[in-house]
Amino acid sequence: MTQKSCIEAKFSERINQVPRSFIRDILKSATNKEIISFAGGLPNKKYFPAQALARSAARVLHSNPNTALQYSLSFGLPELREIISSFYNSQGINIPVENILITTGSQQALDLIGKVFINPADKIIIEEPSYLGAIQAFSMYNPVFKPIELNYDGINIEKWKEAICNSKFTYLISNFQNPSGVTYSNEKRKEIASYAKKTDSLIIEDDPYGKISFEDNLPPNIYTYAPDNTILLGSFSKMIVPGFRIGWIIANNEIINKLETAKQAADLHTNVFSQCVVIDFLKNNNIAEHLQKVTTAYKKQAMVMFECIDKYFGEEVKYTRSKGGMFTWATMPEGFSSIRFFEKALKRNVAFIPGVPFYINKNDVNTLRLNFSCCEPEDICKGIKIMAEIYNETY
Amino acid sequence: MTQKSCIEAKFSERINQVPRSFIRDILKSATNKEIISFAGGLPNKKYFPAQALARSAARVLHSNPNTALQYSLSFGLPELREIISSFYNSQGINIPVENILITTGSQQALDLIGKVFINPADKIIIEEPSYLGAIQAFSMYNPVFKPIELNYDGINIEKWKEAICNSKFTYLISNFQNPSGVTYSNEKRKEIASYAKKTDSLIIEDDPYGKISFEDNLPPNIYTYAPDNTILLGSFSKMIVPGFRIGWIIANNEIINKLETAKQAADLHTNVFSQCVVIDFLKNNNIAEHLQKVTTAYKKQAMVMFECIDKYFGEEVKYTRSKGGMFTWATMPEGFSSIRFFEKALKRNVAFIPGVPFYINKNDVNTLRLNFSCCEPEDICKGIKIMAEIYNETY
Repeated sequence: MTQKSCIEAKFSERINQVPRSFIRDILKSATNKEIISFAGGLPNKKYFPAQALARSAARVLHSNPNTALQYSLSFGLPELREIISSFYNSQGINIPVENILITTGSQQALDLIGKVFINPADKIIIEEPSYLGAIQAFSMYNPVFKPIELNYDGINIEKWKEAICNSKFTYLISNFQNPSGVTYSNEKRKEIASYAKKTDSLIIEDDPYGKISFEDNLPPNIYTYAPDNTILLGSFSKMIVPGFRIGWIIANNEIINKLETAKQAADLHTNVFSQCVVIDFLKNNNIAEHLQKVTTAYKKQAMVMFECIDKYFGEEVKYTRSKGGMFTWATMPEGFSSIRFFEKALKRNVAFIPGVPFYINKNDVNTLRLNFSCCEPEDICKGIKIMAEIYNETY
Repeated sequence: MTQKSCIEAKFSERINQVPRSFIRDILKSATNKEIISFAGGLPNKKYFPAQALARSAARVLHSNPNTALQYSLSFGLPELREIISSFYNSQGINIPVENILITTGSQQALDLIGKVFINPADKIIIEEPSYLGAIQAFSMYNPVFKPIELNYDGINIEKWKEAICNSKFTYLISNFQNPSGVTYSNEKRKEIASYAKKTDSLIIEDDPYGKISFEDNLPPNIYTYAPDNTILLGSFSKMIVPGFRIGWIIANNEIINKLETAKQAADLHTNVFSQCVVIDFLKNNNIAEHLQKVTTAYKKQAMVMFECIDKYFGEEVKYTRSKGGMFTWATMPEGFSSIRFFEKALKRNVAFIPGVPFYINKNDVNTLRLNFSCCEPEDICKGIKIMAEIYNETY
């Protein structure tokens, strides 16, 4: 495999700008079984409904193989879109089926949004910190990122209002954000919706974790307050399983039709066998019961993590008391190096993600992401204690 | 859903340039059950191995649910990549596993190639006519298409050599092209490979139909003659089923790593449940036997179509005697309108695709695509006869 230099000259500008994934290297170093890892971002496989899915797969291939195996519609199966519509309907949100597009995971939704909206050098607002996958997807379309500080109740509204006027859109995660665990207060949701309407701005509201809520009183999606100004993303990855790669986008007619054009060019349509299996699974199983099981486990693990941080770390370490999802986010004293902390922790078989990849153009930061969905409570205690020991020795 | 004008101003230039899909409207008008349709582009569902796939799905979810349902690798499952590598190995082509990337159907391969190579206004060479899905995927990255005439033994080499010098790459389908049914002669393959090496040019060799060959003596892929200058695409859509959306890209290390970066940003990874099912299916079933069944049926249908064209149309109508795949391509006398022909045929319940969408910027042409994979021989005869009647009445 030669001719490196010649090939290099052929690559597009966009791909040459994408940095190598920092997280991938970290995850590679954290695969050792001895390691207590808070580094991952995976749902807990213990709660995959494998047997129920096996029954669904068998039924689908017995009763409806031609639909499940043939080429299908770029918009996704109408029946699945109806189920999603009725999900929202039961929450009092009216979303017509024709405003729902099935995507190959939420990640594809981000790519399609990039394709449909971003011209090179367009300014787009993201939270600081923001979801790495969104930064990667949007980067392919060469925007200028404008990160706005994220507080514990959502984006800093004053700074956001100042930044919004020349921006193409604002990308945010309203519930249990990855990486920070932050959930927007109802007041901030309303304020964002109202200002978006007033300024005719577009909000991309990513909501993969909304159903993984530890409490019952989650405020409504921003979409509810400003449906014409919001594109809402959802996913079955955390609700059922990620391996199926099934997500969805909700947007008004004009936007959704453009997104479908981009979808068709991107992969024709989403895996239709898995769409059929999900339809059958949702018809024949109690999804609320399943979610109850998942959230109870995650909540228990999160509470153990929070208790241990309180117990072993000093008050100068701040963190998000996440009310759902899979992550918390610790902020260490100013000047602290999360990269050096990571290296030391790894030597003692504990892993996490230093905050760096969730920012634009930073080499080191005093923040870090901790995942609680995949560790047993005992390991969580043990791991946090080791981290605190290192912290207390060093700082 | 209001605010049309405001939203319109936000769309990217690339998406505003994409024309509405012409084929989609045609396919919609051809869904009536009375219609004999040569318009589709689908594999014949009669030959989907639904029962064997059901057995594989059950085994996968019983024995290996955690891998099949969890997040997975952007490159695809190593075992599937090994199987693909050994496919080629059995044909005498050495392709290391690390040079294979699993994609969400071949359509995604085209999108990723667009992302990794095309800067706006880059010139790219395509065959005339070319695959509509490729035109759509590449269009998203705003290239300038340079269509080169396709002869019955492949692209017009002289015109191709003239066009190549300022072009980013050449996109071609070497076996049983969609839409034309054309297969490249071994001489043309060698000539293209040798000239690509000499001029350090890049060839995108799309080969979704290679395994649907009516004869045993298919020449080697162009990739074989110039592996460093060729990106080779393959797919299980026609070999097994399209609903799984599993394809692959083969390229040298440097290119494949860039493509993986783009893949990760596009949808993280391909549906891993379906990857597991395909692995199990290929291990426990005789794929050669399955392909024999499919190609025997398609060949029979193709031969009936060719006989009927010979019988009912005059010598002034030329067509491809396709040696595999799913399509033939008819060229009517100069000045003939395939659009008007289509409208008349549809009134008599016969459908096909007028050649228009397979060209860049043409409103009408004297060519048309005929699919033979999905019609029973009797219907093929009936449909071709009706088309000939209309043709003979009018011209």
